[in-house]
Amino acid sequence: MSKPIVGILMGSNSDWDTMQNAAQTLTEFGVAFEAKVISAHRMPDDMFAYAETAAERGIKAIIAGAGGAAHLPGMLAAKTIVPIFGVPVASKHLSGEDSLLSIVQMPKGIPVATFAIGDAGAANAALHVIANLAVNDPALAKKLEAFRGAQTEKARAMNLPGHS
Amino acid sequence: MSKPIVGILMGSNSDWDTMQNAAQTLTEFGVAFEAKVISAHRMPDDMFAYAETAAERGIKAIIAGAGGAAHLPGMLAAKTIVPIFGVPVASKHLSGEDSLLSIVQMPKGIPVATFAIGDAGAANAALHVIANLAVNDPALAKKLEAFRGAQTEKARAMNLPGHS
Amino acid sequence: MSKPIVGILMGSNSDWDTMQNAAQTLTEFGVAFEAKVISAHRMPDDMFAYAETAAERGIKAIIAGAGGAAHLPGMLAAKTIVPIFGVPVASKHLSGEDSLLSIVQMPKGIPVATFAIGDAGAANAALHVIANLAVNDPALAKKLEAFRGAQTEKARAMNLPGHS
Amino acid sequence: MSKPIVGILMGSNSDWDTMQNAAQTLTEFGVAFEAKVISAHRMPDDMFAYAETAAERGIKAIIAGAGGAAHLPGMLAAKTIVPIFGVPVASKHLSGEDSLLSIVQMPKGIPVATFAIGDAGAANAALHVIANLAVNDPALAKKLEAFRGAQTEKARAMNLPGHS
Amino acid sequence: MSKPIVGILMGSNSDWDTMQNAAQTLTEFGVAFEAKVISAHRMPDDMFAYAETAAERGIKAIIAGAGGAAHLPGMLAAKTIVPIFGVPVASKHLSGEDSLLSIVQMPKGIPVATFAIGDAGAANAALHVIANLAVNDPALAKKLEAFRGAQTEKARAMNLPGHS
Amino acid sequence: MSKPIVGILMGSNSDWDTMQNAAQTLTEFGVAFEAKVISAHRMPDDMFAYAETAAERGIKAIIAGAGGAAHLPGMLAAKTIVPIFGVPVASKHLSGEDSLLSIVQMPKGIPVATFAIGDAGAANAALHVIANLAVNDPALAKKLEAFRGAQTEKARAMNLPGHS
Amino acid sequence: MSKPIVGILMGSNSDWDTMQNAAQTLTEFGVAFEAKVISAHRMPDDMFAYAETAAERGIKAIIAGAGGAAHLPGMLAAKTIVPIFGVPVASKHLSGEDSLLSIVQMPKGIPVATFAIGDAGAANAALHVIANLAVNDPALAKKLEAFRGAQTEKARAMNLPGHS
Amino acid sequence: MSKPIVGILMGSNSDWDTMQNAAQTLTEFGVAFEAKVISAHRMPDDMFAYAETAAERGIKAIIAGAGGAAHLPGMLAAKTIVPIFGVPVASKHLSGEDSLLSIVQMPKGIPVATFAIGDAGAANAALHVIANLAVNDPALAKKLEAFRGAQTEKARAMNLPGHS
Repeated sequence: MSKPIVGILMGSNSDWDTMQNAAQTLTEFGVAFEAKVISAHRMPDDMFAYAETAAERGIKAIIAGAGGAAHLPGMLAAKTIVPIFGVPVASKHLSGEDSLLSIVQMPKGIPVATFAIGDAGAANAALHVIANLAVNDPALAKKLEAFRGAQTEKARAMNLPGHS
Repeated sequence: MSKPIVGILMGSNSDWDTMQNAAQTLTEFGVAFEAKVISAHRMPDDMFAYAETAAERGIKAIIAGAGGAAHLPGMLAAKTIVPIFGVPVASKHLSGEDSLLSIVQMPKGIPVATFAIGDAGAANAALHVIANLAVNDPALAKKLEAFRGAQTEKARAMNLPGHS
Repeated sequence: MSKPIVGILMGSNSDWDTMQNAAQTLTEFGVAFEAKVISAHRMPDDMFAYAETAAERGIKAIIAGAGGAAHLPGMLAAKTIVPIFGVPVASKHLSGEDSLLSIVQMPKGIPVATFAIGDAGAANAALHVIANLAVNDPALAKKLEAFRGAQTEKARAMNLPGHS
Repeated sequence: MSKPIVGILMGSNSDWDTMQNAAQTLTEFGVAFEAKVISAHRMPDDMFAYAETAAERGIKAIIAGAGGAAHLPGMLAAKTIVPIFGVPVASKHLSGEDSLLSIVQMPKGIPVATFAIGDAGAANAALHVIANLAVNDPALAKKLEAFRGAQTEKARAMNLPGHS
Repeated sequence: MSKPIVGILMGSNSDWDTMQNAAQTLTEFGVAFEAKVISAHRMPDDMFAYAETAAERGIKAIIAGAGGAAHLPGMLAAKTIVPIFGVPVASKHLSGEDSLLSIVQMPKGIPVATFAIGDAGAANAALHVIANLAVNDPALAKKLEAFRGAQTEKARAMNLPGHS
Repeated sequence: MSKPIVGILMGSNSDWDTMQNAAQTLTEFGVAFEAKVISAHRMPDDMFAYAETAAERGIKAIIAGAGGAAHLPGMLAAKTIVPIFGVPVASKHLSGEDSLLSIVQMPKGIPVATFAIGDAGAANAALHVIANLAVNDPALAKKLEAFRGAQTEKARAMNLPGHS
Repeated sequence: MSKPIVGILMGSNSDWDTMQNAAQTLTEFGVAFEAKVISAHRMPDDMFAYAETAAERGIKAIIAGAGGAAHLPGMLAAKTIVPIFGVPVASKHLSGEDSLLSIVQMPKGIPVATFAIGDAGAANAALHVIANLAVNDPALAKKLEAFRGAQTEKARAMNLPGHS
Repeated sequence: MSKPIVGILMGSNSDWDTMQNAAQTLTEFGVAFEAKVISAHRMPDDMFAYAETAAERGIKAIIAGAGGAAHLPGMLAAKTIVPIFGVPVASKHLSGEDSLLSIVQMPKGIPVATFAIGDAGAANAALHVIANLAVNDPALAKKLEAFRGAQTEKARAMNLPGHS
């Protein structure tokens, strides 16, 4: 695989079930990425080191997933100007409502682009990264157009039982 | 002003109070933009027309703000691969909780990058757009680094009454 | 079946489990309908085309179900004066609270009649459509009266274990 | 005024501030209506009497607004097949979230079409009633089309400070 | 069994699973009761008839359970001065939060005493009825004291694994 | 005033604004009561002492209002079989949603009858106490019937501007 | 085991599944504790007695877990200056949101340190107690540092399928 | 003032209005503290530096207040074993519900002791710190006992209008 331009980070390997949706999407589009467990709370120095070196290592976007008091996306955003795409992972007791608010309600000055709770959010974070890259990459833009077209056709082909 | 590369859309001119935070931020960074009222519900055809022609007109990002049953960001996203950045405008009765959920909970396949409710979200949407543009624009990246540095210094200079 | 006068639309065939409650109710009353998957986000042009031609095709009411950031009912409403009846489909993580707010909190000027989350809402949307049709259809009004009467008798006949 | 075909009911005259939005809308469209205070909890027999005689008196739709534990729309629905359009009036402490859930979460079998909390909901309930009447009233349909067209033009004419 | 002095009402026999907790509690205390399915929405006239005749039939308290847009307790309260004790039955999608707000947020003038969502609420409604009756019934007061004492002893006797 | 048979307790004199609604209602019905500040958290021993001696002092019902983490009603209930009627006082930041859940969600075995947040809840707690007392007090029952009748007439007499 | 310096209290043995996370953590650190069922509502006098004698018995911290209308932590705090650490146990219908608000929203003057809903909260309450004890116990501080270091290494060693 | 043993940190000087409640409480008890603006998002390196050197500088407890996506308390906790006491500052649109969840829902392994939203929480965080320090400081324990006693007397002395 070529040098990664996207980082997929998550607080624990238990988040992989959700975050693999981002990985699969990037793979489908041929966008090179690296996926790592970096816990904001248990590996704070690694998190800062990752953020500090991301730009120089060629990382153009970071997708960060976390649950509960989800601080990973916001703290990465505090340490780098590489754009951060946050994914609220569903939490055990509050269904990810805590994760969502912890990620999206960032104060003025340090943005985190936030997506839906769970699998859809992880896939969409990757699609949004791709859309941003596609602005300067006509080939990728073409792929994205094709993906969207295929998605439309797939939806159009859906059948309802007893309805043609 | 040079040809706009960012569109700032909102459902009503009553959203301008919030959305001007995005406009001010882009202005501060010298990023050319256009700002328009395009209501998803009262101007659906204009909305689709805007989305369909945005890419060819050179628009590289769309910041869309809406309140209540906020459909503008998601429907723009459905019609273009230009990346959409959604801002939940605070609603009268539910404080923007409805706006937030209507924007962030997009289904798999059509992403909207979502930011905080209100002013902070509008400013941050613009900052995130800038961060994405900066990936391929070293001068803009430098400006963003400088902005962040100044922001840090400003925070460091804050005083508390009776504390030096 | 005779020419449909009601359209039942939903964003995905996974919504059919919920929306079939609307279909069954219309069938029970002999109201001709068509049921289709039309995704607001993946098939926006089809959605607009459906809305634009609904009235001329004889559609008198549209029941639209969607989950999460549920934009289908509101966007149909933006494109036609045929009355829209929205059904919040339960979402995976937020139990349909997001669906409900995305549908019910429409801005002044573009109404969507909203019903309960899930099966009850789908059945009730159909019953409400029938009630509106019945205003000008005495035979249908009679059927509705009979349905309500039978429903009352069924409730009256309910037994509790050990209670007569 | 000609014989009313729509009833606007509310639990207290303090709801009039909200519900007059429905009255103004019907007036604007020339739809004859009557507006009354009928409290579900303080005037339960009047409420039942109203519902029982509504159809024979020529009432084709009832718009009912209530706040808090809002039982008026649902109980009217229990007593008549005339379609009920419920408006959640904002409550003092919970901003109408209680009103909304009390109205929209009706059980299978007895539908209430529900609209947004507050003024927008009241206006939209009236617009939805008009849309249903318009299905069998070409002149009213034309008015509704015109209203919608004017609404679009008004939105299109909105200016943003410093933006043409 | 002697003449019932308490009525246990519920909107559907599916609520019995919850409401039997009230029945068991009354049985345990030897308080005569009747349990009936009376749906506010499907049997409104029966509901009013029940409320109107309750006092003269010797009913001194009514425990009413309902879920979703739960109108049964509040509407009974509107029709009788017999005190009403409301039990929010857990709803399918919103876990009874809708039931709770629909019951507890009654307007000034018509009270419903509300208890916890589900089984605990049903049992506690019965215990509260007993406490009210016990104010004028020393024998019942004694039983209630004994019940409470036994409950304390049972809690005291609880063991934790590996802890004496 | 004769010997009090109802106690109105509250956690702070700042709750009086809400709780005076209970006092006024009892006064209106001629039910003797005492009103005291007894804070569960700052006066726990006084609270226990009050509860322990309430019955022997002739107290037949206790209305307890509290806000935030509202423990007063539930802890009184833990210490006496005198029935407790809880009033959630609106809290500064969460509008009384915390007060409501802290009062209503009591575990099986120790009931607190809960009423609406704020003024309406305080008045209704008093009305419910009166309803319970009226079961054994025909004169009080008559007063309650009269109160309810007057309330109905007052609602019937409400006018809407421009509507007779 | 040596004389306990920490008390772990809970309202029922059904809370043990959650609260054992506190016990295991203290055991792991060699901090002597006692674990008891003391229900605020069913054993109020035992609760007060526990709180009153805790300090003199050498208890330096109390970890209290409870669900629903969770009054145990706050009432212990009302009766002792020994610091209280509250754990919201997940409730059946509201997932512990009621427990959390009942514990955390204490009024000014009587603090309860609150932790996350469920297992994580119970473990963290114990870790926070340990951190407070470690301030005056260098050996314990060393253990805590080691625990945190090991935790970091364990997180660092996490693998993602197909990623090294 | 003697060398500070408590740090009061907050994300912005706009939080001082809330956090001064902590400062006043510590001052009242004669506990030396330092108060600083350290923003997690705008001053991440300062935050880490503060946490890394806190213990060696003699800091025994850190009270950290933040609003919205409140990451300051949790990230300090990730970097030091000095116990962290978090205060959710009320946010503009969501009243501090986002702040609360962002602080309290920490994952297993890194605890933050959380207090009520706003002023009460800030004061109580300080009181809890004092309670922990008092465990090893009999003079401070005495002061705390006295404070609590005075607080009780003050509550006992509260009058209600027209009630002695």
